[in-house]
Amino acid sequence: MTLSTILTRIDTDLDNALDRLMELLRIPSISTDPAYKADCAKAADWLVEDLKSIGFDAASRPTPGHPMVVAHGGEGGTHVLFYGHYDVQPVDPLNLWHRDPFDPAIEETDKGKVIRARGASDDKGQLMTFIEACRAYVAETGKLPCKITIFLEGEEESGSPSLVPFMEANAKDLTADVALICDTDLFDANTPAITTMLRGLLGEEVVITGPSKDLHSGMYGGPAINPIRVLSNIVANLHDDTGRITVPDFYEGVPELSDELRSQWEALGFDDKAFLGDVGLTTPAGEKGKTVLEQIWARPTAEVNGITGGYTGDGFKTVLPSVAKAKISFRLVGTQDPLKIRDNFRQWVRDQLPPDCSVEFHDHGAGPASVMATTNPAFAAARAALTDEWPNPAAFTGSGGSIPVAGYFKTILDMDSMLIGFAMEDDSIHSPNEKYDLRSFHKGIRSWARILDALSN
Amino acid sequence: MTLSTILTRIDTDLDNALDRLMELLRIPSISTDPAYKADCAKAADWLVEDLKSIGFDAASRPTPGHPMVVAHGGEGGTHVLFYGHYDVQPVDPLNLWHRDPFDPAIEETDKGKVIRARGASDDKGQLMTFIEACRAYVAETGKLPCKITIFLEGEEESGSPSLVPFMEANAKDLTADVALICDTDLFDANTPAITTMLRGLLGEEVVITGPSKDLHSGMYGGPAINPIRVLSNIVANLHDDTGRITVPDFYEGVPELSDELRSQWEALGFDDKAFLGDVGLTTPAGEKGKTVLEQIWARPTAEVNGITGGYTGDGFKTVLPSVAKAKISFRLVGTQDPLKIRDNFRQWVRDQLPPDCSVEFHDHGAGPASVMATTNPAFAAARAALTDEWPNPAAFTGSGGSIPVAGYFKTILDMDSMLIGFAMEDDSIHSPNEKYDLRSFHKGIRSWARILDALSN
Repeated sequence: MTLSTILTRIDTDLDNALDRLMELLRIPSISTDPAYKADCAKAADWLVEDLKSIGFDAASRPTPGHPMVVAHGGEGGTHVLFYGHYDVQPVDPLNLWHRDPFDPAIEETDKGKVIRARGASDDKGQLMTFIEACRAYVAETGKLPCKITIFLEGEEESGSPSLVPFMEANAKDLTADVALICDTDLFDANTPAITTMLRGLLGEEVVITGPSKDLHSGMYGGPAINPIRVLSNIVANLHDDTGRITVPDFYEGVPELSDELRSQWEALGFDDKAFLGDVGLTTPAGEKGKTVLEQIWARPTAEVNGITGGYTGDGFKTVLPSVAKAKISFRLVGTQDPLKIRDNFRQWVRDQLPPDCSVEFHDHGAGPASVMATTNPAFAAARAALTDEWPNPAAFTGSGGSIPVAGYFKTILDMDSMLIGFAMEDDSIHSPNEKYDLRSFHKGIRSWARILDALSN
Repeated sequence: MTLSTILTRIDTDLDNALDRLMELLRIPSISTDPAYKADCAKAADWLVEDLKSIGFDAASRPTPGHPMVVAHGGEGGTHVLFYGHYDVQPVDPLNLWHRDPFDPAIEETDKGKVIRARGASDDKGQLMTFIEACRAYVAETGKLPCKITIFLEGEEESGSPSLVPFMEANAKDLTADVALICDTDLFDANTPAITTMLRGLLGEEVVITGPSKDLHSGMYGGPAINPIRVLSNIVANLHDDTGRITVPDFYEGVPELSDELRSQWEALGFDDKAFLGDVGLTTPAGEKGKTVLEQIWARPTAEVNGITGGYTGDGFKTVLPSVAKAKISFRLVGTQDPLKIRDNFRQWVRDQLPPDCSVEFHDHGAGPASVMATTNPAFAAARAALTDEWPNPAAFTGSGGSIPVAGYFKTILDMDSMLIGFAMEDDSIHSPNEKYDLRSFHKGIRSWARILDALSN
């Protein structure tokens, strides 16, 4: 059987695959620092050459920032677009690294062998799992398993300024049947995950003004309205006693969890105690009657991310301030409409203002949730393929955070995304001593080979 | 009649009195800046010489900081201790002054003649009103009207570090029947005031900790408790719907306003609209059913002077913070016990903590209200004397703020204080272009002459 010979080739070729990854890791492609502009171009060129060597029609495509790598190859089966990014985070504080971040090495650790380098996990190691799977396929069968477009960005760690314009200008060139995004974690060391629900995000800054200037709290305390008190009341009113958000119509478009997902999630055996215990907590503080996983993956939230007003330095100042501010974000799910929620939230705040207070709002972004159409047969095929590779069955999971590129694939290219990654929570991405487990790399390559095989029919 | 000849002498000697004040104003006695240490000593010495010239036994007394001036003179009648301070605030930003702050001058303004200089009002001009009254008395009668102790501080604008130790070490030397403090305002241009009630102050910093570290609000938003939300709830609960403070037993020791004071205050014709309008407000926000003057002078308050938590810089960061903090102050009246209120407040906060949250408190001072025993006949005498001098009757008023020296006179020297001053709200004390109305200076001297005359019997 072809798949088993491909998997065997992956096993025997692993050292060579590691050598190739090391070469890529040695290029310090830090996208946010202009000093590394040439290195970003070099990483893109390296990938173009590597992709050409396995038969892709690949090119480094200029943008106002760092280049995009776009490659086409194969035919038939499901047409997939694979997305990854070749740029990496800065490395400071450098003194906390125990080796040069751009001199990669295999290290033995308590938990097994790891590849240590900046970008080992995020995202060079992860994107190479896909390319190595393609290579093994071509080496064994002479061709790619299906029609594949590869799309590698060089600005993911610096805000992706060129991403949307490039996607809009090259929509035809990039559109496929389904997108594959390799920038996420395993659920745990033995359990692969396909993230199918990403929460959306609405960011609002609320600025309440009371008196026209800062006052002395002895001279004015009592008759003068204090904007900190007004703001605190509003924040306090944002949730009811059961943890539900009180903004009118907020829950419009929030779906109940399907029985199918509920049982998949229950089977994951998520350890609430450990999850909360890691950050010093014991008691879930979200909506009553919802599990912790539901609270993170499937329920909307309102969080105050920052609050400030009056004197906040050392010591004490008896000021009655003119202004108090809060940054509030809403995580959104299902088909919640961020723009409608913004309007309702702002009106809800205005309705609570006492006399003499005014409010200003500052917009900090509004993006809906991404909910993938898992009825697309590619999802079931990929899930089965992952389940074949790993000890535990793969699950469709959610993510509390937002991965904007998945939203753009949906809104600009009308594609669902399968977010499949092999990183571990302890990979220290964005931190000193980043690593990628050798097991993640090896089984990651095998996983993609299985998925591509499943999608080749 | 002696008083009228003394008042006439004050009128005819006014230019000479102004010359003397100008001399004192030329000494840049900025207490907080070590560069002016010698100038502070010089101002003290100047006052000692001036007091000696009118028959006081005066001396500059060393402290670890700037010297105290202590002078004794006269005999009989009510023994008064007069308190003032010869140090001044810094002058920056200097470019906002329209003349050298230490080159005093008489200037014509829309509202009449003013003495323009740093310290003209706070407190050199005010303290000289008393000394000039003594001078006129001695010139006309050959002696002081009663037993007088003068006590002038040089550290009032820099936190009075030596005041309490000096008072404790020199209690016998400083104790009199009643203290006179000349560091306050007229009620308005035509209405003198004796401040008899000063609110106390309890300062508390509340630090709420939830998760053991800052979290990503996407990854943890929902199940992880947010300390900003906990703190906002506590702040929101601090007042009920009628503006009363909800801390248990908080109102123990808060007296109802006497009919006597209520009618005096009503007679003042205080302009709520103008008072609030000056700072952009229209609607009293304090306890329901209390007038604005009551809210400031006679009722306790709770104010949040500062709040902070999470990300407060530009832009947005989806952090779920570990810690949120608020600085909260209580203004106290009557016999409210600050230490008992601190205990009750802390317990009240602890009782509201949800699981996984802890609280730390930082003590920022606790002082009771000062309520003078106006049954002391000196109060009625001074009130009548002031009423004789000014267009409108004098009133016993309150003060929303705290003047610590009045509290120390009570607790250390067991003296009530009469706070009588002639400053105007627009004197720009602590600001550029400080001034003292010539009328304040002139009628201030005449006021003290009348008060001393009344206390001489």
